Amino acid sequence: MFNFTATYTDMYQLSMAQVYFKKGKKDELAIFDYYFRKIPYNGGYAIFAGLGDLLKTIETLTFSKEDIEYLTQYDFEPDFLAYLRTFKFSGTIYSVQEGDVVFQTQPILQVEASMVEAQIIETILLNLLNFQTLIATKASRVAMVAKDKTLLDFGLRRAQGPGGYFASKAAMIGGFHGTSNVIVGRDYNIPISGTMAHSFVQSYDTELEAFRDFAECRPKKCVLLVDTYNTLKSGIPNAITVAKEMETKGQQLLAIRLDSGDLAYYAKQCRKLLDAAGLAYVKIAVSNQLDEFVIKSLKEQEAPIDIYGVGTNLVIGKPNGALDGVYKLAYSSGKPRIKISESLIKTTLPYRKQVYRMNDENGKFIGADAIAIHTEEKVDLMHHPYEPYKQLEVGAYKQEPLLTPVMENGKKTIPDYSLNEIAAYSKERLSHLLTEYKRFDNPHIYKVGISSLLKKERDMLIALYKTDKN
Amino acid sequence: MFNFTATYTDMYQLSMAQVYFKKGKKDELAIFDYYFRKIPYNGGYAIFAGLGDLLKTIETLTFSKEDIEYLTQYDFEPDFLAYLRTFKFSGTIYSVQEGDVVFQTQPILQVEASMVEAQIIETILLNLLNFQTLIATKASRVAMVAKDKTLLDFGLRRAQGPGGYFASKAAMIGGFHGTSNVIVGRDYNIPISGTMAHSFVQSYDTELEAFRDFAECRPKKCVLLVDTYNTLKSGIPNAITVAKEMETKGQQLLAIRLDSGDLAYYAKQCRKLLDAAGLAYVKIAVSNQLDEFVIKSLKEQEAPIDIYGVGTNLVIGKPNGALDGVYKLAYSSGKPRIKISESLIKTTLPYRKQVYRMNDENGKFIGADAIAIHTEEKVDLMHHPYEPYKQLEVGAYKQEPLLTPVMENGKKTIPDYSLNEIAAYSKERLSHLLTEYKRFDNPHIYKVGISSLLKKERDMLIALYKTDKN
Repeated sequence: MFNFTATYTDMYQLSMAQVYFKKGKKDELAIFDYYFRKIPYNGGYAIFAGLGDLLKTIETLTFSKEDIEYLTQYDFEPDFLAYLRTFKFSGTIYSVQEGDVVFQTQPILQVEASMVEAQIIETILLNLLNFQTLIATKASRVAMVAKDKTLLDFGLRRAQGPGGYFASKAAMIGGFHGTSNVIVGRDYNIPISGTMAHSFVQSYDTELEAFRDFAECRPKKCVLLVDTYNTLKSGIPNAITVAKEMETKGQQLLAIRLDSGDLAYYAKQCRKLLDAAGLAYVKIAVSNQLDEFVIKSLKEQEAPIDIYGVGTNLVIGKPNGALDGVYKLAYSSGKPRIKISESLIKTTLPYRKQVYRMNDENGKFIGADAIAIHTEEKVDLMHHPYEPYKQLEVGAYKQEPLLTPVMENGKKTIPDYSLNEIAAYSKERLSHLLTEYKRFDNPHIYKVGISSLLKKERDMLIALYKTDKN
Repeated sequence: MFNFTATYTDMYQLSMAQVYFKKGKKDELAIFDYYFRKIPYNGGYAIFAGLGDLLKTIETLTFSKEDIEYLTQYDFEPDFLAYLRTFKFSGTIYSVQEGDVVFQTQPILQVEASMVEAQIIETILLNLLNFQTLIATKASRVAMVAKDKTLLDFGLRRAQGPGGYFASKAAMIGGFHGTSNVIVGRDYNIPISGTMAHSFVQSYDTELEAFRDFAECRPKKCVLLVDTYNTLKSGIPNAITVAKEMETKGQQLLAIRLDSGDLAYYAKQCRKLLDAAGLAYVKIAVSNQLDEFVIKSLKEQEAPIDIYGVGTNLVIGKPNGALDGVYKLAYSSGKPRIKISESLIKTTLPYRKQVYRMNDENGKFIGADAIAIHTEEKVDLMHHPYEPYKQLEVGAYKQEPLLTPVMENGKKTIPDYSLNEIAAYSKERLSHLLTEYKRFDNPHIYKVGISSLLKKERDMLIALYKTDKN
């Protein structure tokens, strides 16, 4: 649906690019790290999403003729614009696999490319990865509490414009089963579902007529919305009537849907009425301002709900709304680079790196990832990145490298994984994470440390910049 | 940038549409109201945005061959799919003008079309209007406190994916002056701006070299980012050196930018150092987690800031993230329609309507809009929609009708207003609203009432549905 063009970027990328171009620095090799500082939702983990879309987009990203014509009205020089017209990303990208569980401060992805190319793709990279990771993480939290129940995304109408497209898709990576969003169903082969709105019932003189027509024309997967007028006095009795009529034709009503009122109370009452009518097979679907906390509460109340339709709170990633992912220079022109900050927590890490995940003998994550310089094959001692006296011996664990090449010389080197494959991988990875990291209240903090060598190099650079005065 | 196709919709629109199609109801005239129930940000007004984009999109919306092929795998019948292949919206839309101030529960837009057409456009209508109205409203709040200062949108990197596109655009309607988002600048003729990231400074061995190269290659509108290492000890001294060098070439440094630390403190210190160096003309730009409250605080502290770059909090509409706009059936098959709810506040209003805004003799809004049946030319007494004993005499005021046709028979009937025109209109309309409705804390509540006739008709329908039992 999207024709991303290379002007899907911030102006400063182009301002900087022209300087690199004019000063002969445009082809100097640079390495940028993508990472976030804070796990969203005060949670204990995030689910990395958006990689496949990003790689496909970058592979074909160019400045169109229209883009270049537009830019002539700004302060760019003809030779630079001529160069942009030929722009194509030709760098290498290392990344964690899409769907993996990821944590604060660790490089999730690294770009190794010419300065200009690395800068121009920054905006679209952050735009796609930050949002999809935010939503996949939210979806994963919802899926964790919903357990074996069916989760459907209903959010497009109140999504952030076309952001809803990637929200519906990222929700599947986090564990949703389907969406109401037709175009995303089409583009990503996601099961789509949807039944009727209140307007459908309202458009008939009686609710019963509305249900009858609907069941007649859409007998497969028929779901009746029972709360337009009075759920227990009209909605359910009418649904029962129609379900019985469907039975005489050899059909089965799939479900009734509740979209208002106290969902726990109504689900229980509806279940009783349906069961009493011999309709134990009719499922109960609910929607209306759901999120992981509401669903958790409904489950705790033993509300007999089979299908949860989650809308706004999912697709806008409420309450965070954004992941604070950043893209920081780690190396350029043959030298390691850092950004100093008053607080060590915002100081960046130099060099191309590798992230090692510590596994125990059963393949469970022990709860520690170590960031090393990429040439280090193993980490023996890992240091807290900001608190100098905290360290952890990790030499005895199985160390799993997380960053692998996913694009080389501008060409994607990994297959187009299906959403089902990514979701299954995500589920498998999450299963190695202890439940203490998954709980909503004060989850255990997954340790992310740095190797002794990386610490030494970083601290040397800090010392250098502090004395240098620049 | 977007190729919206008619599958940018929710599946239930198509499920319902097939029933209408099969039961011969597809061409029955329906009227839907678009409105929201709650003003975002606990504010006293919202700014309506997104209309122009919506009308342009609807005018050309069709199901592509690919869409239809995709839908064949679902439970749709060939004659219905053949009809969808010919789908084109041919209805009429009445709307408040884009940029106007709007309030809770009042119809902002009405769609009068065949049932099927009205349903199929629901999703894209809500998706575009809800989000742009949310962001224009946020931007308006920021603009209100920033007053004569320059406001730039820097949000794309942490926007909700391509939602950022419409966020950057809607921000202009609310009063922003420019964006870093290049493609939106291109598509909507918005001034774009942007200078350098920390990575630019980091990529040089010294900050001074970085500043020199930048100023040499981008002498116009040159802004130097001074907080990569140490703002007061290196950033500002280096910026002063470069500014003085620029002066010898007859150039002027436009501004320095601060992106971290205590912005009030650093802005004051930077101002002193720049002034002492004879650089009173160099402006101060700031960014980093700004919103209307931070900017209000910076102004109250008399921080000498000229340019505010607002990012994430603007483009994701934090903290709300979504506007609760709904699309409710008011009329179909020759009859007025309502949705009953346990609370009167969620009960809808029947019939096509008009909204009259009460103006005093000077053209100021008195703080009351009356919803009437569209045939009523004037409202004498307006009733609180949910509290039966509250009413207001409004017969003496100048009554301004807000809903006018903007599309007839599927053709847009209003010009393509430029963003500047819409923003100017919005500013003018806001100037008629008393400041009591604009304050952040407990703003005065703008009254939205219903006419005596509309109240009578609504209450009759409620009584009818309550006794009927459906």
